[in-house]
Amino acid sequence: MQTLIQSVLALQGDALQTVDVLLADRHIHTVAPAGTLSTEAHQHVVAGQDKLLLPGFVNGHTHSSQVWQRGLIPQLPLELWLANVFDSTPQQLNQFYWGAVSTAVDTLLSGGTCLMDHAYVIPGQEMETVDALVRGYRTVGIRAVIAPLLMDLPFAAGLPSGCLLPQADSPRSVAHLLALMEALIAEFHDPDQGIYIGLGPTGFHRCSDSLLQGCSELSHRYQLCYHTHLLETRAQQRLAQERYGHSAVRHFHDLGCLGPRTSLAHAVWLDDADIELLATTGATVVHNPVSNLRLGSGLAPILKCLRAGLTVAFGCDGAASNDAQNLLEAIKLGTILHTVTDADYQHWLTPAQAVELATVGGAKGVNLSDCTGMITAGFEADLVLYNLNHPSMLPCTDPLQLLVLGRPTDVVDAVWVQGRQVVGQNEVLTVDIAALHHALRQSSLNLRHPQTQHHAVEPHYRDVMLSS
Amino acid sequence: MQTLIQSVLALQGDALQTVDVLLADRHIHTVAPAGTLSTEAHQHVVAGQDKLLLPGFVNGHTHSSQVWQRGLIPQLPLELWLANVFDSTPQQLNQFYWGAVSTAVDTLLSGGTCLMDHAYVIPGQEMETVDALVRGYRTVGIRAVIAPLLMDLPFAAGLPSGCLLPQADSPRSVAHLLALMEALIAEFHDPDQGIYIGLGPTGFHRCSDSLLQGCSELSHRYQLCYHTHLLETRAQQRLAQERYGHSAVRHFHDLGCLGPRTSLAHAVWLDDADIELLATTGATVVHNPVSNLRLGSGLAPILKCLRAGLTVAFGCDGAASNDAQNLLEAIKLGTILHTVTDADYQHWLTPAQAVELATVGGAKGVNLSDCTGMITAGFEADLVLYNLNHPSMLPCTDPLQLLVLGRPTDVVDAVWVQGRQVVGQNEVLTVDIAALHHALRQSSLNLRHPQTQHHAVEPHYRDVMLSS
Repeated sequence: MQTLIQSVLALQGDALQTVDVLLADRHIHTVAPAGTLSTEAHQHVVAGQDKLLLPGFVNGHTHSSQVWQRGLIPQLPLELWLANVFDSTPQQLNQFYWGAVSTAVDTLLSGGTCLMDHAYVIPGQEMETVDALVRGYRTVGIRAVIAPLLMDLPFAAGLPSGCLLPQADSPRSVAHLLALMEALIAEFHDPDQGIYIGLGPTGFHRCSDSLLQGCSELSHRYQLCYHTHLLETRAQQRLAQERYGHSAVRHFHDLGCLGPRTSLAHAVWLDDADIELLATTGATVVHNPVSNLRLGSGLAPILKCLRAGLTVAFGCDGAASNDAQNLLEAIKLGTILHTVTDADYQHWLTPAQAVELATVGGAKGVNLSDCTGMITAGFEADLVLYNLNHPSMLPCTDPLQLLVLGRPTDVVDAVWVQGRQVVGQNEVLTVDIAALHHALRQSSLNLRHPQTQHHAVEPHYRDVMLSS
Repeated sequence: MQTLIQSVLALQGDALQTVDVLLADRHIHTVAPAGTLSTEAHQHVVAGQDKLLLPGFVNGHTHSSQVWQRGLIPQLPLELWLANVFDSTPQQLNQFYWGAVSTAVDTLLSGGTCLMDHAYVIPGQEMETVDALVRGYRTVGIRAVIAPLLMDLPFAAGLPSGCLLPQADSPRSVAHLLALMEALIAEFHDPDQGIYIGLGPTGFHRCSDSLLQGCSELSHRYQLCYHTHLLETRAQQRLAQERYGHSAVRHFHDLGCLGPRTSLAHAVWLDDADIELLATTGATVVHNPVSNLRLGSGLAPILKCLRAGLTVAFGCDGAASNDAQNLLEAIKLGTILHTVTDADYQHWLTPAQAVELATVGGAKGVNLSDCTGMITAGFEADLVLYNLNHPSMLPCTDPLQLLVLGRPTDVVDAVWVQGRQVVGQNEVLTVDIAALHHALRQSSLNLRHPQTQHHAVEPHYRDVMLSS
């Protein structure tokens, strides 16, 4: 199967050029100057006029099951928000299937071809939960890394200055969790089908050192992405100092958990030494600007990270802390937000740089930079074709600036993932969208419940975090 | 003509209730408990199930002609960005007409029923320019306040520490400008038709005291809105100290320009004394969060303003500094952005508060709080009906949170402005949308030109603003 995209404005390195792009099976076969590739009878030919072709973006961090919690959780700091999230987490396998489908659809229709699902899995039904997610992602045909959230410390351990709350949850042992991960890898890791398993310890705040290290060993053994939350909040920064006597970055480094396959979600509360240290390891920072504002987590030092040579990717984070799963929105905010941290505009992110973070940076963050993130011969064909004639892309000025700094809507004309076309004329071709919407409408009725803003942990949180 | 909206979830004060709403001619006639108003033969009946009815938002600050500069101007601080904007400002009257139409359409389809156009007008063709804008707004049927940008100081006067650049512009005299405003008021101010003229001195940085005061006198005489830029940038804060020896807020106050009809765009660089002083005057601050990040202007102290009792409204600002004109996007960002300025989450804006700023606050900012911004009997019918069944509003959790914190798209089912339905089934009913898009596509070809990031003023700017 070959597809020839003719005379299309496409990203080549950091510039736009008009080219012909030939896809053969799952790969980009040839990229050549416009008009130089002739059509052949067996090819599917796509006219590139008034279109823009970019590598697919990567959503570097989300939690697909939170689709069911969109619009549900009040604006609270992470630690109090989490208590509310736990109370309303879905527990039905079909909700996990539809959560994956919904997340995949939103990703494709906002320019993404790959996502990192830092996935909640139902305790005792871990295999079944991941199976539901895999079915969802394979049905839609998106590339997905599934990194089940692992933890072996109770919720209260994640708060600074201890907390005397009784704990309802009974965490699993490290050995149990690592054996589970080996089983998940054996059963579901399938790069040919675009499905990957990652190691996803929740974060240092909920994990023992032996769990963090055990995940790292599996990551090395199977060459898999190691993905974790890092210093999302000021409370976590304080907790690390209490528990280790130094920064969490230093602790991860000392445990041997940082390397080129590591991606770290949030990384808001890094100091300059953390940034320098991270840059030496080849790890990727995943920036989730909408979630960081929604939860009041703070302004991640993204411009400093980039100047230190760190790789940065973008993420939406889950729908409970970003009530939309739109990559273009996250990229826009991540592009304009950091002007307030640096008066010198020569350091500000440009639209072209933002696209590089979302593609090349995103691919590196999910350990796939050898096959996706660029429009170049030999790479897999993960491509998004945007409609430059859409009203939200008018007038016809700078296409990248309109895409990144505008508010494009319904502009994704076509998407290919591993060479397979999964979106055409702004419609996902692979899944019954009406059934998805029906499922969201029906099941949400069962989930609706009063917002439980006030949680038993709140007095402790206010005492520790707001009294100084 | 009567319209009965039956059994609709509607904002009543700060809570949602299911009610029947009867519109008669241009007014809201009755709001009653659901099921209590019976239909009559001559009424247009609208089913309110699965819908949300809100007062129309007000876009408190934009510049409609910048529609033509979407995607064109690089990310630069205001002072350098402005130089680029001047270079590419449209000069054809039909561009002003279509700019108004485009701005009005984007406003309606993102929940707005009224806008403040702080309008560039072609020198020497001021009457014709405003005529084009009025035709655009009346064609679409939106409520619009047109406040022509007035200035009598050269561009270089708006920079701190002076600037030796030769000036191409030759500002008009105060007398000329005020006479022009009187003529515009006489010709175009027409509240019955939803068209208002406002006094719009650009800002203290480009205006003499006599122009600022002359505008204030006209505002008092004709009871019109007084709208101006205030302390958008750190450079303006420094300029005020240089020129007056005290804050720009104090200066406006001493000139007698601050009062309940005053609305102040941006107000980023306010100190605590400024906020206290503003609160005593009854003035409104218009918050433009997207533009403020796009230009690196800073974080406006919105939470402090609200706690001091100031009225705050939202604005999109022009499309050259916010490459979209979507009110829901500006409201979302303005709601979540300020968490980083205050660790106490009890001070954060809720979705319901954000809607109040966008409606009641917005109405006050354009001097129309006696007739728009609330769903209450006797007010004019400026109403927006949202589709809660749209995929971007699923699952069915909290409607206000989904609207404000999600990324709603194509959810505006119907809009009434002064009782006239101007949107139905997410389509603007009053204007030929295809003709608008054709105009944007065609004329934009003539505007495309290389981005002129580097301007002669740049060395001075860097020397003054970045060297310390």
